[in-house]
Amino acid sequence: MSQLARDCLKNLSKYIPGKQEEDVKEEFGLSSVIKLASNENPLGPSPRALRAAKKALKESSKYPDQHHVPLRSALAVKFGLSPDNFVVGNGSDEIMLLIAQAFLSSGQEVILSRNTFSVYEFVAKLMDGRLLHVDLKDHACDIDGFIEKINPKTKLVFLCNPNNPTGTIVATGKIENLLSKASKDTVVVVDEAYGDYCEREEFTSAATLIGKYDNLIVLKTFSKIYGLAALRVGYGVASRKLIECLNLVKMPFNVNRTGQIAALAALDDAEFVKKSIKNNSLGKKYLYKELSKLGLSFLKTQANFIYIDLKRSAEEVFVKLMQRGIIIRPLNSFGLPMAIRVTIGKPFQNKEFIKSLKEIL
Amino acid sequence: MSQLARDCLKNLSKYIPGKQEEDVKEEFGLSSVIKLASNENPLGPSPRALRAAKKALKESSKYPDQHHVPLRSALAVKFGLSPDNFVVGNGSDEIMLLIAQAFLSSGQEVILSRNTFSVYEFVAKLMDGRLLHVDLKDHACDIDGFIEKINPKTKLVFLCNPNNPTGTIVATGKIENLLSKASKDTVVVVDEAYGDYCEREEFTSAATLIGKYDNLIVLKTFSKIYGLAALRVGYGVASRKLIECLNLVKMPFNVNRTGQIAALAALDDAEFVKKSIKNNSLGKKYLYKELSKLGLSFLKTQANFIYIDLKRSAEEVFVKLMQRGIIIRPLNSFGLPMAIRVTIGKPFQNKEFIKSLKEIL
Repeated sequence: MSQLARDCLKNLSKYIPGKQEEDVKEEFGLSSVIKLASNENPLGPSPRALRAAKKALKESSKYPDQHHVPLRSALAVKFGLSPDNFVVGNGSDEIMLLIAQAFLSSGQEVILSRNTFSVYEFVAKLMDGRLLHVDLKDHACDIDGFIEKINPKTKLVFLCNPNNPTGTIVATGKIENLLSKASKDTVVVVDEAYGDYCEREEFTSAATLIGKYDNLIVLKTFSKIYGLAALRVGYGVASRKLIECLNLVKMPFNVNRTGQIAALAALDDAEFVKKSIKNNSLGKKYLYKELSKLGLSFLKTQANFIYIDLKRSAEEVFVKLMQRGIIIRPLNSFGLPMAIRVTIGKPFQNKEFIKSLKEIL
Repeated sequence: MSQLARDCLKNLSKYIPGKQEEDVKEEFGLSSVIKLASNENPLGPSPRALRAAKKALKESSKYPDQHHVPLRSALAVKFGLSPDNFVVGNGSDEIMLLIAQAFLSSGQEVILSRNTFSVYEFVAKLMDGRLLHVDLKDHACDIDGFIEKINPKTKLVFLCNPNNPTGTIVATGKIENLLSKASKDTVVVVDEAYGDYCEREEFTSAATLIGKYDNLIVLKTFSKIYGLAALRVGYGVASRKLIECLNLVKMPFNVNRTGQIAALAALDDAEFVKKSIKNNSLGKKYLYKELSKLGLSFLKTQANFIYIDLKRSAEEVFVKLMQRGIIIRPLNSFGLPMAIRVTIGKPFQNKEFIKSLKEIL
């Protein structure tokens, strides 16, 4: 590390992404691979979004809309809120960064689950925050554990709901309980990147609480159910006061033009969303059945991936699956070295995964 | 401002972009407008880039390459350096942010010109830096003024070369003089967003000094001569040690996939670059001649825009030009309320600008 770097850079860990298809093909001499490692939509991008993006490309020499006006207006209609309740980011992970930049000063407390999406911890460390971890309880966010740790000095709370990588949810009522106990000076972030896949009734988007709690930010993304991970568009929903701060710290042209236009079109693609949910739902049932037959311990999921506790080192299984052309995610980097996370794919992909897994175990 | 915001947010100013074409059409009831306000390439995007981007779109559901491997490899060949000497950003403005995040701690000194691109100041304030401004000298960066102010406590220096909004350059020899006087603990940033348009021999890219100075970062962009502003791709060239720090603080998927692929293709579009330079060169001569006839005071430019000192409030001229369908940039937000900056357009755009300007003056 260069001596010129800020001290807190020493604490930063590199993000470990899913292995890339091309790299795995080359490394293992394979002609095709199935990637179930990054929770991408196996049906591809929303066709409506794709058509709009293609049209938009010819204007690529022009700077994108700094204020994302059409997209924020469409989101306002979707949520029954005002455009001033939305901030759009270069993926929802950029909004996590904006949150830390806007609200977190050196040494202030951040509370988050121990085994969850790593970017919360990353942005907190980047702004030199002090991390307090809460262990998962029955593989889910332990809201009572959060409430126990929360205090007037807590500046930020990150919740992932459904939780990545366990696919578990906490009911909206529990989140409201946390909000009612938190100080008004604590910003509570609920990341619902996978919320669109949730099939349980006790989950409703925390965005329904925006009018009631000025310190709540809900994060959503176009990377998952709309299939636009490549184009980097996510958004945050919050009170005007918080959104104003996030817009103030964002770079002027943070979201590329193609992404903005594709996202806007994707919002209208109800048919694609329906198809994506159906594929996920069917794949989930198939995988439950097959994993049960194999006697494996897994969690019922409210997302587009399944958490499997192998009760042995996941690294070896990960490599053996790769040799067979299947990329999944071993959860070492999530602090769970005995478990894997597998994206629910198309029927043939799920079958190939099960087939290969059988060969290995 | 929300009481939850970090103190330094109070010092942040909103970025003032060029007016958008659609907004001006609506506001003034115009059927067409000519935008010469954001230094976009009037020839549009590189055709090679456009073709590559179109092809890439079908893979929009997949996360982009976190390490920008093909693009960094191609840049390494172009510059005769290693891929490890490059960091790719969501526009070069993101790299300015990464620089502040990686190197600037609260209260540390940042030196920059008084009248220059506003994002340097923005990122410095965001990380709570202490700003020292150097006045321009004969409308150009005053390197001797920088050298006078620089001291062992200086953490960051930002130079814009050619300077936005004056279009002036400082010779590479002068930049090397600054580097030789600066402490090794001072990071010197040279932003060459407009460097590709420079026609004077005393300018060579500061990237040629990378092997010699470990504390130098040179910024480049695909937004200008390659015509890809919408797609948000810029890059930084520096020693491996500094690049390592910048890559450590960047968000994993900071550059969208379409942008990465388009930028890679654009690098091969020598024909488009040549055409863009030729258009700029011809437009420049035409504007010099016409502005001289009008008796206006302007600066000879090494970029794709011209600085005109109106010696009267620019705001009024800006509005009157807009009423006639011409958008230019009044320089209030650059601290130069009597001047305007006009992008060099296609021949018919330059003519329309001159025609309208004549009517007003």
